[in-house]
Formats: sequence, structure tokens, C-alpha cells
Amino acid sequence: MRVLVLGGDGYLGWPTALHLSRAGYEVGVADSFARRGYDLEMGVDSLVPIASLHRRVDCWEEVSGRRLDVFIGDLTEEEFVYDMVGSFRPDAIVHFAEQRSAPYSMVDRKHAVYTQVNNVVGTLNLLYAIADVDPSIHLVKLGTMGEYGTPNIDIEEGYIEITHRGRTDVLPFPKQPGSFYHLSKVHDSQNIAFCCRAWGLRSTDLNQGVVYGQSTPETTLHADLATRFDYDAVFGTVLNRFVIQAAASEPLTVYGKGGQTRGFLDIRDTLACVELAIRNPAKGGEFRVFNQFTESFSVLELAQMVSDAAGGAKMVHLDDPRVEMEEHYYRAAHTKLLDLGLLPFLLGDELLADLLSIARTHIARLERSALEPKVLWRSTSSSITRTERPQTEDSTSESSL
Amino acid sequence: MRVLVLGGDGYLGWPTALHLSRAGYEVGVADSFARRGYDLEMGVDSLVPIASLHRRVDCWEEVSGRRLDVFIGDLTEEEFVYDMVGSFRPDAIVHFAEQRSAPYSMVDRKHAVYTQVNNVVGTLNLLYAIADVDPSIHLVKLGTMGEYGTPNIDIEEGYIEITHRGRTDVLPFPKQPGSFYHLSKVHDSQNIAFCCRAWGLRSTDLNQGVVYGQSTPETTLHADLATRFDYDAVFGTVLNRFVIQAAASEPLTVYGKGGQTRGFLDIRDTLACVELAIRNPAKGGEFRVFNQFTESFSVLELAQMVSDAAGGAKMVHLDDPRVEMEEHYYRAAHTKLLDLGLLPFLLGDELLADLLSIARTHIARLERSALEPKVLWRSTSSSITRTERPQTEDSTSESSL
Repeated sequence: MRVLVLGGDGYLGWPTALHLSRAGYEVGVADSFARRGYDLEMGVDSLVPIASLHRRVDCWEEVSGRRLDVFIGDLTEEEFVYDMVGSFRPDAIVHFAEQRSAPYSMVDRKHAVYTQVNNVVGTLNLLYAIADVDPSIHLVKLGTMGEYGTPNIDIEEGYIEITHRGRTDVLPFPKQPGSFYHLSKVHDSQNIAFCCRAWGLRSTDLNQGVVYGQSTPETTLHADLATRFDYDAVFGTVLNRFVIQAAASEPLTVYGKGGQTRGFLDIRDTLACVELAIRNPAKGGEFRVFNQFTESFSVLELAQMVSDAAGGAKMVHLDDPRVEMEEHYYRAAHTKLLDLGLLPFLLGDELLADLLSIARTHIARLERSALEPKVLWRSTSSSITRTERPQTEDSTSESSL
Repeated sequence: MRVLVLGGDGYLGWPTALHLSRAGYEVGVADSFARRGYDLEMGVDSLVPIASLHRRVDCWEEVSGRRLDVFIGDLTEEEFVYDMVGSFRPDAIVHFAEQRSAPYSMVDRKHAVYTQVNNVVGTLNLLYAIADVDPSIHLVKLGTMGEYGTPNIDIEEGYIEITHRGRTDVLPFPKQPGSFYHLSKVHDSQNIAFCCRAWGLRSTDLNQGVVYGQSTPETTLHADLATRFDYDAVFGTVLNRFVIQAAASEPLTVYGKGGQTRGFLDIRDTLACVELAIRNPAKGGEFRVFNQFTESFSVLELAQMVSDAAGGAKMVHLDDPRVEMEEHYYRAAHTKLLDLGLLPFLLGDELLADLLSIARTHIARLERSALEPKVLWRSTSSSITRTERPQTEDSTSESSL
């Protein structure tokens, strides 16, 4: 079985490619290196050094004897997409290749437009290429639990049965995304659902929770196979950031009250979920939605767990840079992947100890100023380069509204 | 009160600008002439000749003594949008300036991407400009009833109260748009709703039905004030198309069974609804949705009404070029504009006689081949220029799937 991993140089795309390659799939990876470009733009970097894609691919061949096909290009370029899909002829495409940071999308107008155009057009090109090359290709698309927002009812997996004025229908679950990035994912989901209906394409939308962890069975085989470990306020996911802050004896930065509750999962479960989706494809014409997370935590609970694992770390509550409810109801279904056989890695001391150890090993690479949240949801233009303006006590003074 | 009408050279934008100007508002009109460009691209034209925007504006001044401010430019260009909003300083912005044809968006990949980028980026630029120039500007945005699709439950106005597993919330009404154009409107609505939440903007989303009619009290004051009257299969709305077909003794082309039911309204009600929305603005932070139509009809009912008004016209059922249900439940709320005082023009013999008369006057301008639906939903690439390939009996042979 042939699988193309788009965004194969990224935090999750790279370990997914290795996992599938080791499991016996013929794997191609595609990337535009946009993610590495964001690091250059922001002046930040992964805490754990990562090798170039070419070196990674060579290293994987040395270690495993398996070769990954490499496609360098941008999904917003029609010709690249058609050539790649037409020459690789995948059975499934795993699509991680989007700008995936909510703060990045909220920097200013330019970044909002970039995020929506990049993500929406890339996915549109892919949908057309699949329809034209081979409509039976299974599109496994990474979405986010953040598409749903935090409704006051239980979140279901993609659809909800609604009885209204005596009539009943099963309809798309209402979405309340909380950033231009999350909006782009909702736009994608709507576009893909339509193409399944109109063209008979098949797709699985993985509404993924916040991923934590950095080691997978494959990335630990050689230092050059390591994946990213981000801690900066723009690209660092919350648990990874807390761990690095604890390792650096920096206070854990909790936004607002910390009652924000989200779904989380271990990076190894991401790989397992993607493989389960590929092995059990959607039917022709089906737009299937899985909620891909294993446990729910509030931000404060996570901070407390990291603090405990680190033998006590300070916590500091910052004004929430985002517009979101700091305390709310949260209960989301996530049984479909379990039904397919997922055996989750739950968050525990062992994982936290591993993460703390990785963070301590590389702590000399930490740029402390990158931890500070500079992108403010209520502002239409945020400073993103760390040298551009002096730091202020009251970060809301950057707001232009 | 100052009102900026975006897309002010279009079928609805132009008469809206005149209506508001006559009602005493200070009106600016903005346009990029993209709509006139589509005519050139497709080799079609409005059945009723329309004057250039400059001539129209001069004529309106001659007739009314009132001058419209004119802004020529494209909403996807940041500088144009900021300069226009900053210099005109509107109290309200009426936003018609989007690619508004479902078939046009379904021509091929290029047209799908164009439609979504043009519509989404233009609206994003506008949202940023409003937030930066004056967040109290009321954005009156034209959406479409087609955003909802045809669910098996009653359609509400933007939101629906859902009780699920013992808990209740009011959530955005689930959308099932049926073309890349309709999808672009859903994307817009989600983006605007978010900006109201994050930045405290105020907006009214007018989910408009299919508009019919061509005369308004202002456009009939002078031939150079006329608005468009489209009949081609790409831009002609269904009732207008039937009228022109009847006037030309061509058969009325009913797609599929004709049981497709939609909301409709008279062009004069569009003007009244927009003015009602402006006069009764949304509150700061509010994203308000009105369903803007007055009556529901099936396509077959409309064809029958036109046939009767024309003294008997042939009907022909074509294979439905779209992917849609040809028979379905349809009931949609539309009380909010009535509550604000809308007194609808209902569809009747007088309006149909007026339309038939207009069509007969200009029938020499008809290009018969433009009536044939050439854009097929199931195909990823449709022929759009009428000379490119020979016409075939079985139009589905154009399908590439």
C-alpha cells in the first residue's frame, strides 16, 4: 500500500512517515519547508536539533533499509500537486501540510490571509488532483478539535442528530472556531465534505487534540531522525512548553484562569490513529470524522502535573492573549478510533520524565524571550520579531483596538 | 448617514446604491468590474444594455441632483480597502462585492480557487480595515440561503437551539453548501462571526434567496440607470432566465424533476431589506443573521407561473447539472426582516408581465446558446466558452469523472 505524507518534514508528518515506512507501507513525503521558514521569520528554533529532510531520509535508509520518496514543493501550486499525485499514485494521502499555529494566524492581516489561502487552496488543489488522477485515493486530513470551540453541549464526532419542531436529521456538528487558523480548518472540512458528496471522493477528517511528546520508536533510533520540540509561544503546544519551562526553571505560563479544557494525545497515538484510518478507509463518497484525542485536561491540570513531575515548578497566570472562555463545560466523544483498535498511551509520570529529560539535555538552546506570548487575539497587529519593540509590562498595550 | 456599497456596479449593488441615495443616505459605490469581466470571459451579456459606471453615476446626478462617490479597485488589495474605508468613513458597509455564481465556481479548479480566494480574502481585508479604521462600522454582508442546503428540519435564521444529552445551547445552524461559491459564503460567515467575537465588530449577514426582477423605482427613471438582466446558464437566476426563454419562445429549461425548492424575493425587497438592516444595526460584538426571502417555490412551480403568464410556454427537463436533491423537505424561517417592517412584493402576474415586457423589448440581444447549462457539478473541468467544442446531445459526456 502506497501512502503519501504531506508535510512530511514537520513535527508530526516526519514521525508518521517513519512509522508507516517501518510498518511496511511504501511512503512518500512532501514538504515546502514553510514550517522551517516560520522559525526563521520568528527567530526561534526547535529545542531538539533536527536534521535536514535529505539527511533524515538518508539516515532512515541507513537505519531501516527503506527509502522514502521525496517531493519538494508547495500544495498551492497546481502543477506540483498533479505531478506528485500522478507519479506516486498513492492509495492514501495523509495531509499535515498546513500552517498549523493559531497564534501565527493571528499575528496580523497578512498572516491571517496567508494562513487561510495557504490551507484552503492547498487542500482544494489536492481535492481536484485526487478527483482527476484517481477518485479512490483515501484522503486522511488533519483537522483539529479546536474547530468545535467549547459549546455547552457534548461534542460528537463530526455529526449530530438534531430533532427540531418534530423533524429529525443528522447534520454537521456546529463549529465555533477560535482563530483564523481554526477557521481555515473548518473551511477545509466543508470543502472536503462537499467534494465527497459531489465527486464521490472518500475522506477521513481527523479532528486532532493537542499533541504532546517528542519520542517515537522510530525517531529514537538515531539523533538525525529526531522530530521537532517546540516551546515558543507561537508554535509550542502547551504541554511541551510547560515541560521546557520547568526544565529551564522558568515559571509555567498559564493563560488566564487555566480552566480552558481541551483534548490531548501522545504523539505515538497520532501515528497509531493515522495508521488505523488508512487501514480502515472511508467508503467512496463518505466524509468521515474522527475525534482524535485520548484524554481531556484543563491547562491548570497540565501545569500541575508538569510541576509535580519536575519536583515543583512555579506557575504564573498571564492575561489570556486569546479570546476564549477560561472556564466552561467540555465533554467530547472520541470512541471511533478506540472502536478501530486504538490502545492509547495515557499521560503519566513516565512520559513526563522522558520529556523533562529531553528538555534538560538541550536546554542550552533555549531562547527565553520566545516563551512570552506576543500575539494578542484582540489586536489586529502584533509584534512578532523579538527585537522590534521594547517589552512592556502590560502586553495589552500592543492592542490597536 | 454614510453608506458604502461594495459591488456597486452589479445587478443588486447598483439599484441598492440608487435606493439608498434617494432615501437620503450619503452613498459611495466601489467596484472592480470583475462582473463585467466574467461576461467577456463567457461571451455573454446582460439582456438589457447597461451603461458604464461613470455614465450611470453622472446620469443619477442629472436625474436626482445627488452624487455618488466612486471607488474603483479590488477588495483583495489591502491598500485599496484601507484607503477607501479610511477616506469615506462609512457608518455602514453593504458588501455585495463577491463572485456570486455557483456554476462559475464549478467550472474548473481555477474558477473554484478564484472564487474562494476572491471572496474570502476580500472579506478578510474588509474586516481588518473596519477593525483598524472604526470598529463601530456596521458590516451588512450578503450571504445566501444556499449556505444551509436542504436539511430535513426547519431552517432557522443563523442559529438553532439544540438540546443534546440533557444540555442545551444556541449554536450556529449547521450548513451544507452545494458549490464552491456557496462554500465561500459559509467561510465568510464563519470568519465574520469570529471577528465579531474577537474584536467586537458588528455585522448583519443577509442570507438572501434567489432574486428576481429588474425594475426598481430608481432604475426606471432613465435608460442609463438600468441594472443587469442575466439569462445565461452561469449568471442568470432561474426566474429571470425562464422569463427570457418564454419571451424568446425557447423552452423553459427545468433541471431534473424541478422539485428543488428555494426561497425567492423581488429585487425591490432586496433594497428594502438592506435599508432595514442599516437602519436597525447590529449591536457591537453581534453577528446577526437574517434570512432574506419572502416566498418559497419549487423550480417547477416557477416554470408553470412563467408559462401561464406568457400564454403557454414549453418546458423541457434537462439532466440536473448540479448535485442536489430534486425533491426534498424545505421550510425556512424568515420573520426577522418582517419584524423590522418589511412589506414584501409577492410574486404575481404584474411582476411577470413587466419582466416579459422588458425581455421582449430586448430579445434581439439574446444569444440562444448561452441558455444551455454547460457547467456540470460532477465534472472537474467544464467547457465554458461556447465556441471551444461542438455541442453534444449528451452533455454529461463532458464529465471527466
